Amino acid sequence: MLTAARTAFAEKGFDGATIRGIAGAAGVDPALVHHYFGTKDALFLAAVEAPADPGTLLPEILDGDPARLGEGIVRVFLRLWDGPLQPAGLALVRSAVANEWSARLLAEFLATRVLRRVVATLEVPAAEREARGALVASQLVGLVMARYVLRLEPLASADAATLVGAIGPTLQRYLTGELPLGTPHT
Amino acid sequence: MLTAARTAFAEKGFDGATIRGIAGAAGVDPALVHHYFGTKDALFLAAVEAPADPGTLLPEILDGDPARLGEGIVRVFLRLWDGPLQPAGLALVRSAVANEWSARLLAEFLATRVLRRVVATLEVPAAEREARGALVASQLVGLVMARYVLRLEPLASADAATLVGAIGPTLQRYLTGELPLGTPHT
Repeated sequence: MLTAARTAFAEKGFDGATIRGIAGAAGVDPALVHHYFGTKDALFLAAVEAPADPGTLLPEILDGDPARLGEGIVRVFLRLWDGPLQPAGLALVRSAVANEWSARLLAEFLATRVLRRVVATLEVPAAEREARGALVASQLVGLVMARYVLRLEPLASADAATLVGAIGPTLQRYLTGELPLGTPHT
Repeated sequence: MLTAARTAFAEKGFDGATIRGIAGAAGVDPALVHHYFGTKDALFLAAVEAPADPGTLLPEILDGDPARLGEGIVRVFLRLWDGPLQPAGLALVRSAVANEWSARLLAEFLATRVLRRVVATLEVPAAEREARGALVASQLVGLVMARYVLRLEPLASADAATLVGAIGPTLQRYLTGELPLGTPHT
Protein backbone atom coordinates (compact mmCIF):
# COMPACT_ATOMS: atom_id res chain seq x y z
CA MET A 1 0.00 0.00 0.00
CA LEU A 2 2.81 2.46 0.86
CA THR A 3 4.57 1.76 -2.43
CA ALA A 4 1.38 2.41 -4.35
CA ALA A 5 0.79 5.54 -2.26
CA ARG A 6 4.32 6.89 -2.94
CA THR A 7 3.89 6.36 -6.68
CA ALA A 8 0.48 8.01 -6.71
CA PHE A 9 1.50 11.04 -4.60
CA ALA A 10 4.69 11.59 -6.63
CA GLU A 11 2.91 11.20 -9.97
CA LYS A 12 -0.40 12.95 -9.31
CA GLY A 13 0.40 15.11 -6.32
CA PHE A 14 -1.49 15.16 -3.05
CA ASP A 15 -4.57 16.75 -4.57
CA GLY A 16 -4.73 14.37 -7.52
CA ALA A 17 -4.11 11.10 -5.70
CA THR A 18 -7.10 9.25 -4.26
CA ILE A 19 -7.41 6.54 -1.63
CA ARG A 20 -9.53 4.60 -4.13
CA GLY A 21 -6.83 4.83 -6.81
CA ILE A 22 -4.06 3.84 -4.40
CA ALA A 23 -6.08 0.89 -3.12
CA GLY A 24 -6.72 -0.20 -6.71
CA ALA A 25 -3.00 -0.03 -7.58
CA ALA A 26 -2.17 -2.02 -4.45
CA GLY A 27 -4.91 -4.58 -5.20
CA VAL A 28 -6.75 -4.02 -1.92
CA ASP A 29 -10.10 -2.67 -0.84
CA PRO A 30 -10.22 1.10 -0.14
CA ALA A 31 -11.74 0.27 3.25
CA LEU A 32 -8.50 -1.49 4.18
CA VAL A 33 -6.46 1.65 3.38
CA HIS A 34 -8.86 3.69 5.50
CA HIS A 35 -8.60 1.12 8.27
CA TYR A 36 -4.79 1.24 8.37
CA PHE A 37 -4.14 4.91 7.74
CA GLY A 38 -7.37 6.77 8.40
CA THR A 39 -7.20 9.86 6.20
CA LYS A 40 -5.40 10.64 2.94
CA ASP A 41 -3.35 13.13 4.96
CA ALA A 42 -2.14 10.40 7.34
CA LEU A 43 -1.39 8.08 4.42
CA PHE A 44 0.72 10.83 2.83
CA LEU A 45 2.66 11.38 6.07
CA ALA A 46 3.39 7.65 6.20
CA ALA A 47 4.35 7.50 2.50
CA VAL A 48 6.83 10.38 2.89
CA GLU A 49 8.06 8.92 6.19
CA ALA A 50 7.57 12.40 7.59
CA PRO A 51 9.30 12.62 10.96
CA ALA A 52 6.72 15.08 12.28
CA ASP A 53 3.12 15.98 11.52
CA PRO A 54 2.82 19.56 10.30
CA GLY A 55 -0.87 19.41 11.20
CA THR A 56 0.01 19.45 14.90
CA LEU A 57 3.04 21.78 14.66
CA LEU A 58 1.75 24.52 12.40
CA PRO A 59 -1.01 25.84 14.69
CA GLU A 60 1.64 26.71 17.31
CA ILE A 61 3.57 28.71 14.71
CA LEU A 62 0.59 30.31 13.03
CA ASP A 63 -1.21 31.38 16.21
CA GLY A 64 1.50 33.93 17.09
CA ASP A 65 2.04 37.53 16.01
CA PRO A 66 1.98 37.61 12.17
CA ALA A 67 4.80 40.19 12.21
CA ARG A 68 7.03 37.64 13.95
CA LEU A 69 5.98 34.63 11.91
CA GLY A 70 9.49 34.31 10.42
CA GLU A 71 11.12 34.07 13.83
CA GLY A 72 8.49 31.59 15.04
CA ILE A 73 9.11 29.31 12.08
CA VAL A 74 12.89 29.27 12.65
CA ARG A 75 12.39 28.67 16.39
CA VAL A 76 10.09 25.65 15.97
CA PHE A 77 12.14 24.34 13.04
CA LEU A 78 15.36 24.38 15.11
CA ARG A 79 13.64 22.82 18.13
CA LEU A 80 12.72 19.87 15.92
CA TRP A 81 16.01 19.62 14.04
CA ASP A 82 18.25 20.09 17.07
CA GLY A 83 16.11 17.44 18.74
CA PRO A 84 14.52 14.11 17.97
CA LEU A 85 13.61 14.87 14.35
CA GLN A 86 17.19 15.17 13.12
CA PRO A 87 18.01 11.55 12.13
CA ALA A 88 14.72 11.03 10.29
CA GLY A 89 14.95 14.48 8.76
CA LEU A 90 18.45 13.84 7.43
CA ALA A 91 17.32 10.49 6.05
CA LEU A 92 14.58 12.32 4.17
CA VAL A 93 17.06 14.85 2.71
CA ARG A 94 19.51 12.09 1.73
CA SER A 95 16.80 10.15 -0.03
CA ALA A 96 15.52 13.25 -1.86
CA VAL A 97 19.02 14.07 -3.10
CA ALA A 98 19.75 10.50 -4.19
CA ASN A 99 16.45 9.75 -5.87
CA GLU A 100 14.28 11.83 -8.14
CA TRP A 101 11.05 10.21 -7.02
CA SER A 102 11.82 10.87 -3.37
CA ALA A 103 12.62 14.47 -4.29
CA ARG A 104 9.26 14.81 -6.04
CA LEU A 105 7.47 13.29 -3.05
CA LEU A 106 9.24 15.58 -0.57
CA ALA A 107 8.59 18.65 -2.74
CA GLU A 108 4.90 17.75 -2.96
CA PHE A 109 4.80 17.22 0.80
CA LEU A 110 6.43 20.59 1.52
CA ALA A 111 4.29 22.41 -1.01
CA THR A 112 0.86 21.04 -0.12
CA ARG A 113 1.16 20.03 3.54
CA VAL A 114 3.45 22.69 4.97
CA LEU A 115 4.00 25.79 2.83
CA ARG A 116 0.45 26.08 1.53
CA ARG A 117 -0.88 26.11 5.09
CA VAL A 118 1.60 28.75 6.21
CA VAL A 119 1.03 31.14 3.32
CA ALA A 120 -2.75 30.64 3.40
CA THR A 121 -2.81 32.79 6.54
CA LEU A 122 -1.02 35.73 4.91
CA GLU A 123 -2.59 38.91 3.61
CA VAL A 124 -0.75 38.75 0.30
CA PRO A 125 -2.06 38.21 -3.23
CA ALA A 126 -2.96 34.56 -3.84
CA ALA A 127 -0.74 34.51 -6.93
CA GLU A 128 2.32 35.26 -4.80
CA ARG A 129 1.69 32.64 -2.14
CA GLU A 130 3.44 29.69 -3.75
CA ALA A 131 6.54 31.74 -4.56
CA ARG A 132 6.73 33.09 -1.01
CA GLY A 133 6.39 29.59 0.40
CA ALA A 134 9.07 28.21 -1.90
CA LEU A 135 11.49 31.00 -0.91
CA VAL A 136 10.93 30.16 2.77
CA ALA A 137 11.59 26.50 1.99
CA SER A 138 14.80 27.38 0.14
CA GLN A 139 16.24 29.13 3.22
CA LEU A 140 15.12 26.38 5.63
CA VAL A 141 16.44 23.53 3.49
CA GLY A 142 19.68 25.52 3.13
CA LEU A 143 19.87 25.89 6.91
CA VAL A 144 19.57 22.11 7.23
CA MET A 145 22.30 21.61 4.65
CA ALA A 146 24.70 24.16 6.15
CA ARG A 147 24.13 23.27 9.84
CA TYR A 148 23.59 19.50 9.79
CA VAL A 149 25.03 18.16 6.51
CA LEU A 150 28.01 20.40 5.68
CA ARG A 151 28.39 21.47 9.35
CA LEU A 152 29.63 24.84 8.23
CA GLU A 153 30.99 26.80 11.19
CA PRO A 154 30.06 28.93 13.05
CA LEU A 155 26.56 28.12 11.81
CA ALA A 156 26.77 24.47 12.87
CA SER A 157 27.33 25.30 16.54
CA ALA A 158 25.42 28.60 16.72
CA ASP A 159 22.70 28.70 19.38
CA ALA A 160 19.07 28.77 18.32
CA ALA A 161 18.49 32.38 19.46
CA THR A 162 21.26 33.67 17.18
CA LEU A 163 19.83 31.80 14.20
CA VAL A 164 16.29 32.98 14.97
CA GLY A 165 17.56 36.57 14.96
CA ALA A 166 19.65 36.12 11.82
CA ILE A 167 17.28 34.05 9.67
CA GLY A 168 13.85 34.98 11.08
CA PRO A 169 13.79 38.36 9.26
CA THR A 170 14.68 36.62 5.99
CA LEU A 171 11.60 34.41 6.27
CA GLN A 172 9.47 37.36 7.38
CA ARG A 173 10.45 39.28 4.23
CA TYR A 174 9.78 36.24 2.04
CA LEU A 175 6.35 35.87 3.66
CA THR A 176 5.10 39.43 3.89
CA GLY A 177 7.70 41.83 2.42
CA GLU A 178 7.79 43.53 -0.96
CA LEU A 179 9.17 41.03 -3.47
CA PRO A 180 9.56 41.30 -7.26
CA LEU A 181 7.31 38.32 -7.95
CA GLY A 182 5.96 39.55 -11.24
CA THR A 183 2.44 39.99 -9.90
CA PRO A 184 1.07 43.43 -9.12
CA HIS A 185 0.17 44.05 -5.48
CA THR A 186 -3.58 44.39 -5.09
CA MET B 1 47.63 11.78 -5.29
CA LEU B 2 44.00 12.99 -5.39
CA THR B 3 42.96 10.45 -2.75
CA ALA B 4 45.78 11.59 -0.47
CA ALA B 5 44.85 15.20 -1.16
CA ARG B 6 41.16 14.62 -0.32
CA THR B 7 42.09 12.96 2.96
CA ALA B 8 44.53 15.73 3.89
CA PHE B 9 42.16 18.60 3.00
CA ALA B 10 39.24 16.98 4.82
CA GLU B 11 41.31 16.15 7.92
CA LYS B 12 43.55 19.21 8.25
CA GLY B 13 41.67 21.81 6.26
CA PHE B 14 43.06 23.85 3.38
CA ASP B 15 45.35 25.86 5.63
CA GLY B 16 46.74 22.82 7.48
CA ALA B 17 47.33 20.54 4.51
CA THR B 18 50.69 20.79 2.69
CA ILE B 19 51.84 19.62 -0.74
CA ARG B 20 54.80 17.95 0.99
CA GLY B 21 52.49 16.01 3.36
CA ILE B 22 50.14 14.99 0.55
CA ALA B 23 53.07 13.83 -1.61
CA GLY B 24 54.41 11.83 1.35
CA ALA B 25 51.03 10.14 1.94
CA ALA B 26 50.80 9.30 -1.78
CA GLY B 27 54.40 8.02 -1.83
CA VAL B 28 55.54 10.43 -4.53
CA ASP B 29 57.93 13.36 -4.74
CA PRO B 30 56.45 16.81 -3.96
CA ALA B 31 57.87 18.01 -7.29
CA LEU B 32 55.54 15.57 -9.05
CA VAL B 33 52.51 17.04 -7.30
CA HIS B 34 53.66 20.52 -8.30
CA HIS B 35 54.20 19.30 -11.84
CA TYR B 36 50.69 17.88 -12.18
CA PHE B 37 48.68 20.44 -10.25
CA GLY B 38 50.78 23.57 -9.90
CA THR B 39 49.61 25.25 -6.71
CA LYS B 40 47.93 23.93 -3.54
CA ASP B 41 44.90 25.93 -4.63
CA ALA B 42 44.71 24.06 -7.96
CA LEU B 43 45.21 20.72 -6.20
CA PHE B 44 42.31 21.54 -3.86
CA LEU B 45 40.06 22.43 -6.81
CA ALA B 46 40.91 19.07 -8.39
CA ALA B 47 40.40 17.17 -5.11
CA VAL B 48 36.95 18.69 -4.59
CA GLU B 49 36.14 18.20 -8.28
CA ALA B 50 35.04 21.83 -8.22
CA PRO B 51 33.08 22.55 -11.39
CA ALA B 52 34.32 26.16 -11.47
CA ASP B 53 37.27 28.10 -10.13
CA PRO B 54 36.18 30.75 -7.61
CA GLY B 55 39.51 32.48 -8.22
CA THR B 56 38.37 33.53 -11.69
CA LEU B 57 34.70 34.13 -10.82
CA LEU B 58 34.93 36.10 -7.59
CA PRO B 59 36.70 39.19 -8.98
CA GLU B 60 33.73 39.79 -11.29
CA ILE B 61 31.37 39.70 -8.30
CA LEU B 62 33.57 41.63 -5.89
CA ASP B 63 34.48 44.44 -8.26
CA GLY B 64 30.94 45.79 -8.37
CA ASP B 65 29.06 48.15 -6.06
CA PRO B 66 29.39 46.79 -2.47
CA ALA B 67 25.78 47.78 -1.78
CA ARG B 68 24.66 45.38 -4.54
CA LEU B 69 27.01 42.55 -3.69
CA GLY B 70 24.09 40.29 -2.72
CA GLU B 71 22.42 40.71 -6.09
CA GLY B 72 25.71 40.19 -7.92
CA ILE B 73 26.32 36.91 -6.11
CA VAL B 74 22.86 35.54 -6.97
CA ARG B 75 23.25 36.65 -10.60
CA VAL B 76 26.61 34.93 -11.16
CA PHE B 77 25.53 31.90 -9.11
CA LEU B 78 22.44 31.40 -11.28
CA ARG B 79 24.36 31.94 -14.52
CA LEU B 80 26.61 29.04 -13.50
CA TRP B 81 23.88 26.78 -12.14
CA ASP B 82 21.40 27.40 -14.95
CA GLY B 83 24.28 26.71 -17.32
CA PRO B 84 27.15 24.28 -17.74
CA LEU B 85 27.99 23.95 -14.03
CA GLN B 86 24.71 22.25 -13.09
CA PRO B 87 25.53 18.53 -13.60
CA ALA B 88 28.90 18.76 -11.83
CA GLY B 89 27.39 20.96 -9.12
CA LEU B 90 24.60 18.48 -8.46
CA ALA B 91 27.11 15.63 -8.33
CA LEU B 92 29.02 17.59 -5.67
CA VAL B 93 25.86 18.12 -3.60
CA ARG B 94 24.85 14.46 -3.94
CA SER B 95 28.24 13.27 -2.82
CA ALA B 96 28.29 15.69 0.16
CA VAL B 97 24.88 14.48 1.31
CA ALA B 98 25.77 10.79 0.91
CA ASN B 99 29.23 10.88 2.45
CA GLU B 100 30.55 12.68 5.53
CA TRP B 101 34.05 13.07 4.13
CA SER B 102 32.76 14.69 0.96
CA ALA B 103 30.65 16.99 3.12
CA ARG B 104 33.71 18.02 5.11
CA LEU B 105 35.69 18.62 1.93
CA LEU B 106 32.92 20.71 0.37
CA ALA B 107 32.44 22.70 3.59
CA GLU B 108 36.18 23.40 3.76
CA PHE B 109 36.16 24.43 0.10
CA LEU B 110 33.23 26.81 0.55
CA ALA B 111 34.65 28.26 3.76
CA THR B 112 38.25 28.87 2.70
CA ARG B 113 38.07 29.27 -1.08
CA VAL B 114 34.77 31.07 -1.57
CA LEU B 115 33.20 32.63 1.52
CA ARG B 116 36.42 33.85 3.12
CA ARG B 117 37.31 35.75 -0.04
CA VAL B 118 33.87 37.33 -0.27
CA VAL B 119 33.65 38.47 3.35
CA ALA B 120 37.29 39.65 3.39
CA THR B 121 36.18 42.63 1.30
CA LEU B 122 33.50 43.73 3.79
CA GLU B 123 33.75 46.53 6.31
CA VAL B 124 32.41 44.39 9.16
CA PRO B 125 34.13 43.14 12.33
CA ALA B 126 36.49 40.27 11.57
CA ALA B 127 34.78 38.12 14.22
CA GLU B 128 31.50 38.28 12.27
CA ARG B 129 32.91 37.37 8.89
CA GLU B 130 32.67 33.60 9.11
CA ALA B 131 29.09 33.73 10.38
CA ARG B 132 28.07 36.11 7.60
CA GLY B 133 29.69 33.87 5.01
CA ALA B 134 28.00 30.76 6.40
CA LEU B 135 24.60 32.46 6.31
CA VAL B 136 25.13 33.37 2.65
CA ALA B 137 26.10 29.77 1.94
CA SER B 138 22.97 28.48 3.70
CA GLN B 139 20.70 30.51 1.39
CA LEU B 140 22.63 29.59 -1.77
CA VAL B 141 22.77 25.87 -0.98
CA GLY B 142 19.06 26.06 -0.18
CA LEU B 143 18.42 27.72 -3.54
CA VAL B 144 20.22 24.81 -5.23
CA MET B 145 18.16 22.30 -3.27
CA ALA B 146 14.81 24.01 -3.90
CA ARG B 147 15.39 24.90 -7.58
CA TYR B 148 17.42 21.96 -8.92
CA VAL B 149 16.93 19.03 -6.52
CA LEU B 150 13.38 19.36 -5.16
CA ARG B 151 12.31 21.45 -8.16
CA LEU B 152 9.88 23.33 -5.97
CA GLU B 153 7.58 25.52 -8.07
CA PRO B 154 7.39 28.36 -8.91
CA LEU B 155 11.03 28.66 -7.79
CA ALA B 156 12.24 25.94 -10.15
CA SER B 157 11.08 27.79 -13.26
CA ALA B 158 11.43 31.39 -12.03
CA ASP B 159 13.62 33.59 -14.22
CA ALA B 160 16.97 34.73 -12.92
CA ALA B 161 15.93 38.40 -12.55
CA THR B 162 13.08 37.45 -10.19
CA LEU B 163 15.40 35.39 -8.03
CA VAL B 164 18.06 38.09 -8.00
CA GLY B 165 15.44 40.55 -6.74
CA ALA B 166 13.99 38.15 -4.20
CA ILE B 167 17.17 36.59 -2.79
CA GLY B 168 19.80 39.30 -3.43
CA PRO B 169 18.62 41.46 -0.49
CA THR B 170 18.79 38.41 1.80
CA LEU B 171 22.47 37.94 0.97
CA GLN B 172 23.10 41.69 1.25
CA ARG B 173 21.69 41.70 4.79
CA TYR B 174 23.72 38.63 5.72
CA LEU B 175 26.86 40.32 4.38
CA THR B 176 26.51 43.89 5.60
CA GLY B 177 23.30 44.26 7.65
CA GLU B 178 22.81 44.36 11.41
CA LEU B 179 22.77 40.80 12.67
CA PRO B 180 22.61 39.43 16.22
CA LEU B 181 25.93 37.60 15.94
CA GLY B 182 26.93 37.92 19.58
CA THR B 183 29.86 40.21 18.80
CA PRO B 184 29.63 43.95 19.48
CA HIS B 185 29.94 46.19 16.42
CA THR B 186 33.22 48.09 16.57
